[in-house]
Amino acid sequence: MARRYACILGNLGNTKDRFCGGYKQNPDTMTMLRQAAAVPGVAGIELVGTWDVTPATASEMRKALDGLGLSCVSVIPDLFTHARFGKGSFSSPDPMTRAYAVDETKRAAESAQVLGCPMLNLWPGQDGYDYLLAADYMQQRDWLRDGLAEAAEAFPGLRFALEYKPKEPRCRSYLATMADTLLMCDEIGLDNVGVCIDTGHAFNAQESLGEAIVLAARHGAKRGGDTPASPDPGRLFHLHCNDNHGHWDDDMIVGSIRYTAYIEALHWLDRVGYDGWISMDQYPYREEAAEAIGESIAWLTAIDRRLAEHRDAVDAAVGGYDGVATARTLRGLLFPEPAA
Amino acid sequence: MARRYACILGNLGNTKDRFCGGYKQNPDTMTMLRQAAAVPGVAGIELVGTWDVTPATASEMRKALDGLGLSCVSVIPDLFTHARFGKGSFSSPDPMTRAYAVDETKRAAESAQVLGCPMLNLWPGQDGYDYLLAADYMQQRDWLRDGLAEAAEAFPGLRFALEYKPKEPRCRSYLATMADTLLMCDEIGLDNVGVCIDTGHAFNAQESLGEAIVLAARHGAKRGGDTPASPDPGRLFHLHCNDNHGHWDDDMIVGSIRYTAYIEALHWLDRVGYDGWISMDQYPYREEAAEAIGESIAWLTAIDRRLAEHRDAVDAAVGGYDGVATARTLRGLLFPEPAA
Amino acid sequence: MARRYACILGNLGNTKDRFCGGYKQNPDTMTMLRQAAAVPGVAGIELVGTWDVTPATASEMRKALDGLGLSCVSVIPDLFTHARFGKGSFSSPDPMTRAYAVDETKRAAESAQVLGCPMLNLWPGQDGYDYLLAADYMQQRDWLRDGLAEAAEAFPGLRFALEYKPKEPRCRSYLATMADTLLMCDEIGLDNVGVCIDTGHAFNAQESLGEAIVLAARHGAKRGGDTPASPDPGRLFHLHCNDNHGHWDDDMIVGSIRYTAYIEALHWLDRVGYDGWISMDQYPYREEAAEAIGESIAWLTAIDRRLAEHRDAVDAAVGGYDGVATARTLRGLLFPEPAA
Amino acid sequence: MARRYACILGNLGNTKDRFCGGYKQNPDTMTMLRQAAAVPGVAGIELVGTWDVTPATASEMRKALDGLGLSCVSVIPDLFTHARFGKGSFSSPDPMTRAYAVDETKRAAESAQVLGCPMLNLWPGQDGYDYLLAADYMQQRDWLRDGLAEAAEAFPGLRFALEYKPKEPRCRSYLATMADTLLMCDEIGLDNVGVCIDTGHAFNAQESLGEAIVLAARHGAKRGGDTPASPDPGRLFHLHCNDNHGHWDDDMIVGSIRYTAYIEALHWLDRVGYDGWISMDQYPYREEAAEAIGESIAWLTAIDRRLAEHRDAVDAAVGGYDGVATARTLRGLLFPEPAA
Repeated sequence: MARRYACILGNLGNTKDRFCGGYKQNPDTMTMLRQAAAVPGVAGIELVGTWDVTPATASEMRKALDGLGLSCVSVIPDLFTHARFGKGSFSSPDPMTRAYAVDETKRAAESAQVLGCPMLNLWPGQDGYDYLLAADYMQQRDWLRDGLAEAAEAFPGLRFALEYKPKEPRCRSYLATMADTLLMCDEIGLDNVGVCIDTGHAFNAQESLGEAIVLAARHGAKRGGDTPASPDPGRLFHLHCNDNHGHWDDDMIVGSIRYTAYIEALHWLDRVGYDGWISMDQYPYREEAAEAIGESIAWLTAIDRRLAEHRDAVDAAVGGYDGVATARTLRGLLFPEPAA
Repeated sequence: MARRYACILGNLGNTKDRFCGGYKQNPDTMTMLRQAAAVPGVAGIELVGTWDVTPATASEMRKALDGLGLSCVSVIPDLFTHARFGKGSFSSPDPMTRAYAVDETKRAAESAQVLGCPMLNLWPGQDGYDYLLAADYMQQRDWLRDGLAEAAEAFPGLRFALEYKPKEPRCRSYLATMADTLLMCDEIGLDNVGVCIDTGHAFNAQESLGEAIVLAARHGAKRGGDTPASPDPGRLFHLHCNDNHGHWDDDMIVGSIRYTAYIEALHWLDRVGYDGWISMDQYPYREEAAEAIGESIAWLTAIDRRLAEHRDAVDAAVGGYDGVATARTLRGLLFPEPAA
Repeated sequence: MARRYACILGNLGNTKDRFCGGYKQNPDTMTMLRQAAAVPGVAGIELVGTWDVTPATASEMRKALDGLGLSCVSVIPDLFTHARFGKGSFSSPDPMTRAYAVDETKRAAESAQVLGCPMLNLWPGQDGYDYLLAADYMQQRDWLRDGLAEAAEAFPGLRFALEYKPKEPRCRSYLATMADTLLMCDEIGLDNVGVCIDTGHAFNAQESLGEAIVLAARHGAKRGGDTPASPDPGRLFHLHCNDNHGHWDDDMIVGSIRYTAYIEALHWLDRVGYDGWISMDQYPYREEAAEAIGESIAWLTAIDRRLAEHRDAVDAAVGGYDGVATARTLRGLLFPEPAA
Repeated sequence: MARRYACILGNLGNTKDRFCGGYKQNPDTMTMLRQAAAVPGVAGIELVGTWDVTPATASEMRKALDGLGLSCVSVIPDLFTHARFGKGSFSSPDPMTRAYAVDETKRAAESAQVLGCPMLNLWPGQDGYDYLLAADYMQQRDWLRDGLAEAAEAFPGLRFALEYKPKEPRCRSYLATMADTLLMCDEIGLDNVGVCIDTGHAFNAQESLGEAIVLAARHGAKRGGDTPASPDPGRLFHLHCNDNHGHWDDDMIVGSIRYTAYIEALHWLDRVGYDGWISMDQYPYREEAAEAIGESIAWLTAIDRRLAEHRDAVDAAVGGYDGVATARTLRGLLFPEPAA
């Protein structure tokens, strides 16, 4: 299956942490767009609602993207940078804030429509808690579900991908794993609500990427948990890629630490028939951003090529239930013997 | 709500690890039963099918339990100690082994019926994988679901509690978290299949106990994800208690490391109206076993008493969304000012 | 031993993370000082060099502190907020930056002298690495040692406490654990260089606080690894307190998650004769800061009172090597039976 | 540098865990020896004292090894399988047990002498603790140091490699990391006491292998922390290889999860001039053991070959401090462009 690669525009901009307000200068939006378009392999872009695009500027942005040959892959409403969302966006204890979160999401949806973009990527990062016994989980799940449902119901022509993450900025997030996000999809009960896997978030959640993909495929909108009859990615709507050391969302270049995990992900994406975008989501604090994104795509491309060459062997390994055979297969994939 | 405490009989026996074949002598079954009955607070017992009880010995065991005033809380089919289950029980690649796992579960169910025991606790610990790209997750989930469903369907009068655990003995388990186990319950689609929380497993899965309880309550058999109208524990069928350092299933005495987590658990058990058993599941490798179990119950009892005295304050803290107020409340609970 | 409590001034100010530039308004310095002085139990303050104090303003700051009855406990040179330190301060590949880090530290030392403050707290948070195979560990340890030694040698009348932390802002820090920081102290070989334990950093490093304290006491400046003849904290110069969920530096209120860890810390501080400051280092992103700091001190005070009442029992537990006896002792400490 | 590969004999035998007493049949010793000798690349063997060899059988074992062309790389005294070591070996609260641990170690040393083996590998896995406030860390470190020193002093012609591990079978080990083990070496103060890195243990301790190697090299017996003038592995005496998922000692085939970590290890072994053995230490619970060991060696050999071909590029990456350049270099190493 031909892969389609994208990146998040903001990855090209300033990267800061809680100590340092900025490790680099922030280029202007058009500069970042040109940089993104110049990254080998990048054909799509994700924009953050209100930072990068508003309903008022969406038309102009569309022209810019057209000019650069970029598709808008998703719009991401900004539910995480404002102090007002500090105790939650859709699940904030403050009803005005909850309403604002829904409105902000609808504005992002309007921008998406103007941009011809088919998807919203929702990361409700502030919806969670820090201290135990300081949050009514039952109540907040109702609020979170209701807010998500209201926004998704208003835009049935758009897909809403919920991006889960076990922690950060809150110590615990409500959408923490693939499985609990699928339960939220069930609660919402709309066909246009699914899940975005961020590979680094999945690593932090102690998930295997292949298993996360399989869960999403089994729990599609129309079926109730089952092996799909024909390849069907089910609730898997979107994918963000990066790597990390396992304990935190380090947002590093793909392949820096792991390699098997990505082979597995690509294998299972093919198995379930995923034909969506594969987007890079990194935080190159101290690196040249466009190059860091380009490296990730180059890694994925290189792995994909080898996977294609060894597809039958990998398929056999997956169905073989033997760690030694798998190790041998992976060794053949990474270190092929030179032809005689 | 009056708590009912139990323990797993095997916790009183030999405890070994992968290096040492046994840190203690193994008492005979009747000795262990008498020890369990003598632990202050213990009123129920969990038995492992075939080790502790078989359909042939169940009647005799029932008399022994009656004589000691113990209820049989659950029977746990042994799906984890046999080499034949090394690559899975219900999800083994070998069809004979899959059939054997179902049969073993049915035998445990027969024992439970003779014992007047209302529940099977199923821990499919070998159903998972170690190496990436060495297991067909899609296929194995079908097998796991089908095996569980076949056993549960055959005994509609018994409840089947699925105990999840993120890892060990496999590097990754298929039933790893509350949320993915609820998805499995959905796939099975039977009212008599629910979940057992082992507190230590939940800690290893980076879950908050309160949130796990809330998820189980929201995703009950009859409803599709919602705040229950009246207190209803939903799919929460059973509870195993122990503590650990956070990274592994150390199976320690309750309260050794944490305390807030248990206050939270008891608070939410009450909120959802859980009236089932609270069973101790420890591995006192180097400790006197009956005393280790007794300490856990004494801790839970002491916490419960304080919780009862501070119930309004804790309720307010949970609904207050303020970490400082919660810390103050907990300080009042643990370190009450002496009356003037 | 009478405890002396302090806090870091910046904890009262703005708290931001990599997503949100500020969850609160930032009070001015004098307001924060007054807030700190008003926190029950706070008698000392830690200031960050250049943010809070410079050699030029140190005299004025001293007057302000005197007026508020606060001691300056340490000055913390700012080696972490500037983009120029992005790839390291003392160990930066850039020689100008390395020199700047030493100069910045000397400026903080000058401020400390004017303030009558006996200690610098050094947290070289940017000295580490993110990607494997992208740093010459051998070379950078030389640079780190040389920079620290140069600064400490120039101010023999000041103590330099090295604060370790396993990660953040870098994926891996060079000063990551108590033990490797003691090795660095050995490399430096100066009596005025020791260690600061931040309790949260120690939790993230999978350390027990008691063991970290013991290591610092055994590896004092004058001895080479041994049980001190009389109580002697050795290289333990300073202490920062906070709590977290175990995987990240959440900088929460003391006691929010754990309690045994703090009892152990206070027990061992007494055992080694530590009479230094106990300072709060929190990040109350969403909480009222002064109250969050006050709660931590109130928790430590409450634990300390109980520890004093149960000192003999705790001493016996530590020397008893029996988990059950320890659990019983801790239960007696937290849940004392009311007198008849 | 020519690598010399070995394995631990017991890895070929029965592998059990705390649930299952054995996933396989246990071959007899001679069968295992023949299997080991037949693994491609294996030239050395590690034997466990008393299981595999005693002073009485050492001479006969030597003949068997000679006949198979195997060198005995180390003898490992069994300080971990006996119930009597349950609360520690060298640091047991029981003085008889402490004496027994020293005697057992001396017996292993005698066996080593007969075998012509230059090294003891000491893994004091039971020397640690489970519960907080249930161990006198200060006292036990004295005992541990004294026992190790007594054994090493009695056999100055043998090298004693201390193998660290953060946890298991105890919740916390006294020799937990490279750095604290180097501190113990300093306490012991003998030139023939150094460290063994088990790669999986290092991953669990959140260490980078390269940094662990550098620490050992800097803190050699004769120097006090410094860059060695010429390549010198310092206190690095031995190496055990395996892979894991990051949270536990899964003892998997090398390269199953990570690859960069091993490239880094091999790079730094060369940098410090390590010419010792590289031994496989795995637990192939469910795999054919000899093949699992052979795969690890095949992986290391394949990585080594690529490293040799890209040595200059990797050297440049390490000294380049640029994550993107490192990613590009690694991509070139793993996915070389075919020659035109």
